[in-house]
Amino acid sequence: MATQVNPPRGMRDFLPAEKARRERILDVIRESYRAHGFDEIETPVVEDSERLHSGLGGDNEKLAFGVLKRGLTREELQAAEEPLDLADLGLRFDLTVPLARFYATHRAELPNVFRSIQVAPVWRAERPQKGRYRQFVQCDIDIIGEPGIQAEGELIVATLATIDALGLADASIRINDRRLLVGMLAGFGFPVEEHDATLITIDKLDKLGPDGVIAELAERGADADAVAAFRAFLVRPQTLEFLPYGERAIRKALPAGADDAVVADLVAIGEAVAAARGQQDAPLVFDPFLVRGMGYYTGPIFEVAHPSVPYSLGGGGRYDGMIGRFLGAEVPAAGFSLGFERLVDLVEPPAAAGGAAVALVHDEGVPLATLLALQSGLVARGDRARLVRRAKNTKLQLENLAGQGFTSFAFVGTAASADVDALELRPLD
Amino acid sequence: MATQVNPPRGMRDFLPAEKARRERILDVIRESYRAHGFDEIETPVVEDSERLHSGLGGDNEKLAFGVLKRGLTREELQAAEEPLDLADLGLRFDLTVPLARFYATHRAELPNVFRSIQVAPVWRAERPQKGRYRQFVQCDIDIIGEPGIQAEGELIVATLATIDALGLADASIRINDRRLLVGMLAGFGFPVEEHDATLITIDKLDKLGPDGVIAELAERGADADAVAAFRAFLVRPQTLEFLPYGERAIRKALPAGADDAVVADLVAIGEAVAAARGQQDAPLVFDPFLVRGMGYYTGPIFEVAHPSVPYSLGGGGRYDGMIGRFLGAEVPAAGFSLGFERLVDLVEPPAAAGGAAVALVHDEGVPLATLLALQSGLVARGDRARLVRRAKNTKLQLENLAGQGFTSFAFVGTAASADVDALELRPLD
Repeated sequence: MATQVNPPRGMRDFLPAEKARRERILDVIRESYRAHGFDEIETPVVEDSERLHSGLGGDNEKLAFGVLKRGLTREELQAAEEPLDLADLGLRFDLTVPLARFYATHRAELPNVFRSIQVAPVWRAERPQKGRYRQFVQCDIDIIGEPGIQAEGELIVATLATIDALGLADASIRINDRRLLVGMLAGFGFPVEEHDATLITIDKLDKLGPDGVIAELAERGADADAVAAFRAFLVRPQTLEFLPYGERAIRKALPAGADDAVVADLVAIGEAVAAARGQQDAPLVFDPFLVRGMGYYTGPIFEVAHPSVPYSLGGGGRYDGMIGRFLGAEVPAAGFSLGFERLVDLVEPPAAAGGAAVALVHDEGVPLATLLALQSGLVARGDRARLVRRAKNTKLQLENLAGQGFTSFAFVGTAASADVDALELRPLD
Repeated sequence: MATQVNPPRGMRDFLPAEKARRERILDVIRESYRAHGFDEIETPVVEDSERLHSGLGGDNEKLAFGVLKRGLTREELQAAEEPLDLADLGLRFDLTVPLARFYATHRAELPNVFRSIQVAPVWRAERPQKGRYRQFVQCDIDIIGEPGIQAEGELIVATLATIDALGLADASIRINDRRLLVGMLAGFGFPVEEHDATLITIDKLDKLGPDGVIAELAERGADADAVAAFRAFLVRPQTLEFLPYGERAIRKALPAGADDAVVADLVAIGEAVAAARGQQDAPLVFDPFLVRGMGYYTGPIFEVAHPSVPYSLGGGGRYDGMIGRFLGAEVPAAGFSLGFERLVDLVEPPAAAGGAAVALVHDEGVPLATLLALQSGLVARGDRARLVRRAKNTKLQLENLAGQGFTSFAFVGTAASADVDALELRPLD
């Protein structure tokens, strides 16, 4: 007996039933985004190493799988100072760096405002653990070239409609704005050079709780007066849950002095999303402590929350500085990414459409011409048909076929006609 | 101005129109194979390096992109004797090695006779040239666990039906059997140890012609008597084109002494394929010099030919020794692979189904709530809808939208109603 053979560490195979399930869900996502005016694109799975490691990917850059240069000599190997010297390509760790590269390559061929769909795998050399994979699918939509909140409105409407189409009820969008966060930190007196580190700590609020966040800030040696001011704000009684999303809730959740224009934008986004859904209130929640991990966000940020899971199902925001980086130009952009691997277990995809799925359970010795003629006859009728040699335990075999999704069967004996109309089909269940 | 930014060498981006075209063609292929009883699976894009380099991939193994081990120290780098010492994973160069690995991992969960579909990219570090890419899509079907010609019959019927479904007329299948080739060489007196090299030369018959093949065999120092006997057979007048596929044509194309059982199998495959298609003759051609490059074939082999192109559009055959390699067991298997990148330019995919595609051409200053409500209203009706800010040259803008596949448009002014039924849609063409 050979030793156990497995897929590479942290990666998965998909057997027929799970593959079909995943593809049906991905089809729903693609179709919904397409209906909202977005267009799917595709880029190679690898990008030039220097682009992957240009600082746009944050901590994810460290998790990139590097691809060895071809034709390296022993001398070149031994002259290498570090692994990256030997890699000219790398597997993408997200779909945003490739989008920035794609846009730089093809800008002249794209509409002024370009709405992209990317539904594709990414790779990260994470320490394998439950629910974390080294190859996983992301579903991103991005709007490039639109500086106003129309982009955020479209992204949120399309994403909520997609979640609806997947049959996932009770999802909501948490929303904030990086400029409000920065304004809040400045207002409490955190010096600018402490902002990034402070936001990293605030991002752990769900995990650490208010006291934990304050303790970590103090431990890090953050400005003590600022920490004290922030503490007074953070631990005040929270009553936000009782306010519907809108200006009053946003004002109440923020310290005094918040930027009026930013608050007005967030209110307008919420009103427009509600109008698009034909509802009084959109499923939006203002969260003044929503940070989003990536440092490249410059405006509104959002996350999909669902009561059944403690983590977000996706997120995004405005990142105006990034798409233009490879072009050397300022290009406004905003995006929304769904974490497919987190969604896939929560939703029940629509059943596959189409005709019957027929198992032709045949005896040994039926002429091959008869078998193939019957199969082709069923396919020509719009059915799915599989030839299955009859097993000794026919009852168990039929049960297995039903489990594989077949809806009917026919026995085909050695004297069977090759005429599909003569088949006696019986239901399987 | 930044320098030109390109995708990695030999790889391609797909813009919306081409991406949509490719996906529609892939959907036709998947649907047709599924209808014939095959099931799609998926494996990770990388496999463990030792499996990729276990000898199953022939010359393609040399073209595998290696993935650097993570966390290599400078000492480990400098201790490397060759690049493979630093790679523990590699991008797959075909879909057959991953299938063998997948089958070894999951055999217990799969039907006794397993019919797989794999539609997925593979990577080869080829020297970039016209029509050769470093990332390209293959469409493979395989039947594992069926030792008889039912497998070959099913594979050929499903492939021909798929080519029909793509609207590609006049394709045909060239067919041969490795055992006939080997028998032929033995009959002419080539010693067994010369068979592989001789087949590599015969495989060039289309390119070199009969005289060129004989010259290369002589140059290589092949057994002179065998070469002379082969020459007498090879340069005789060919009259095969006038015979319909069947025993007479096969016998006439072969030297005396061909294995009766193998000939009978090829005849039976042809008759069954014809019966499945409800035709007198199947579009099959016996080609006694068809070799197929890969050394792992053990029985019938086949290729898709089309009069419009000088290369094959796909091929396959029986490869009984290979799938069981990682299991340490003998497992019968046969497969058929379509070269998607060669097909994609020859076929016109069916038009996308679905409702209208509407461009909402809006003025500056229309409330976002109105725009998003109109868009969502159209989507709810089953249409596709995109918001497009009105350009100065509206005529050119509408032409561009028609070119992008939009079928109708409406102007949306600042006083527009948010009621989708009030929209005045006009055709675009």
